[in-house]
Amino acid sequence: MSDDSAGAKEEMMTIIAFSGDLDKLWPTTILASTAAANGMDVTIFATFWGLFPLVKDGEKIGHDSMTKMLGGMNAPGFGSAKLSKMNMGGMGKWMMRKVAGKSNLMPPEDLFEMSLDMGVKVWPCQMTMDLLGIRYDQMLPGLAEPAGAATALARMSKSEISLFI
Amino acid sequence: MSDDSAGAKEEMMTIIAFSGDLDKLWPTTILASTAAANGMDVTIFATFWGLFPLVKDGEKIGHDSMTKMLGGMNAPGFGSAKLSKMNMGGMGKWMMRKVAGKSNLMPPEDLFEMSLDMGVKVWPCQMTMDLLGIRYDQMLPGLAEPAGAATALARMSKSEISLFI
Amino acid sequence: MSDDSAGAKEEMMTIIAFSGDLDKLWPTTILASTAAANGMDVTIFATFWGLFPLVKDGEKIGHDSMTKMLGGMNAPGFGSAKLSKMNMGGMGKWMMRKVAGKSNLMPPEDLFEMSLDMGVKVWPCQMTMDLLGIRYDQMLPGLAEPAGAATALARMSKSEISLFI
Repeated sequence: MSDDSAGAKEEMMTIIAFSGDLDKLWPTTILASTAAANGMDVTIFATFWGLFPLVKDGEKIGHDSMTKMLGGMNAPGFGSAKLSKMNMGGMGKWMMRKVAGKSNLMPPEDLFEMSLDMGVKVWPCQMTMDLLGIRYDQMLPGLAEPAGAATALARMSKSEISLFI
Repeated sequence: MSDDSAGAKEEMMTIIAFSGDLDKLWPTTILASTAAANGMDVTIFATFWGLFPLVKDGEKIGHDSMTKMLGGMNAPGFGSAKLSKMNMGGMGKWMMRKVAGKSNLMPPEDLFEMSLDMGVKVWPCQMTMDLLGIRYDQMLPGLAEPAGAATALARMSKSEISLFI
Repeated sequence: MSDDSAGAKEEMMTIIAFSGDLDKLWPTTILASTAAANGMDVTIFATFWGLFPLVKDGEKIGHDSMTKMLGGMNAPGFGSAKLSKMNMGGMGKWMMRKVAGKSNLMPPEDLFEMSLDMGVKVWPCQMTMDLLGIRYDQMLPGLAEPAGAATALARMSKSEISLFI
């Protein structure tokens, strides 16, 4: 991916994955896996709605009645992610996954797995984990330790590409 | 736009145009045309919902029953783009276009045309074209050849500004 | 925030604050205040829906019937900002603020105030102010003079981090 001469430092990309919507999980995981495959050093900082897809299926989220209710309305796991529009009670999501299956597009959970395998670092946001009552042990294996906004900013300031998705 | 001495390379901006919503088409086309007018080298990588505005009016999208249904729910062309909120069955969109007309703001289709005229490169995303069943010959004239995520990433890594809209 | 030796220039971040949604006001104000606290030179370019939270409570927006109607549907002030999803007639917003109060997370209006105190520059977008009929004297104290897209672009092209939120 780099035009620089040998020995040049790796180029970096940092994505703030704020959205948990199915249609936005695709660009995040496509960009992350493609960048990693091209030798870039990639970090995904997952925050707010973007945390829910990273929670293991079946986990109950929340540390009190209110966060439990929020958790109940945001089912965990990539499989539960809805389209940001045209969701139509789940039909839009089902259609989009079907269409992707017929095309060459892997589902975002597989692209995510592949990204981890290729060395993409995934940092769950500590502050929003606390906010929403999500514990680290409830999240998918392979994630890095939770991090804060200052760490994400330091990373972005060294990155050639920083995106908010 | 550049403070550098004569002969310095042009500054670059790359926008990933993911959204097809009317209110997001404005920032994309305003930033693209303004940057181009100020001598920047601008690329728009149009993907997912962001492809639909670039399809010619009246084109039927889709290569099978499912993509045809998706296409049917996303009418092509800038003129069909809805507001991301307050659309109110089309009234919000109509109001916003009316309000823009009274102000100094050109409609996004004109800003887009102007951007192309000023040398902004528009790359439709090959993978999501295949996904949604959109053919290159169904898209507006003046677009560059379809490109993939790796090409977009290589471009962004050289760009002073990269935005996901 | 910088690893550079003494005397190095401050690192810069520019955020285009396009959204007026409560859940997006948090990342904008968390990133801005955290970056400023770490010595970065931060600019927020507030545009479109992102202008409404910056309007003083009780101000009537609009210069004609149509912009007044738009203003009526977008109550001013941080306090009126809704969640981008799960708003549930205001209950989602109320819950999220309640949950934030129990956690360590300040409300976005306080983070915004703090950002201003720490020297974050907030530029309201002139073009969308004109579009929506928002006057500078209707906006919160402490904002910089309205600016245009060219100014925002010049700033972003010098920024280590540029985000569209």
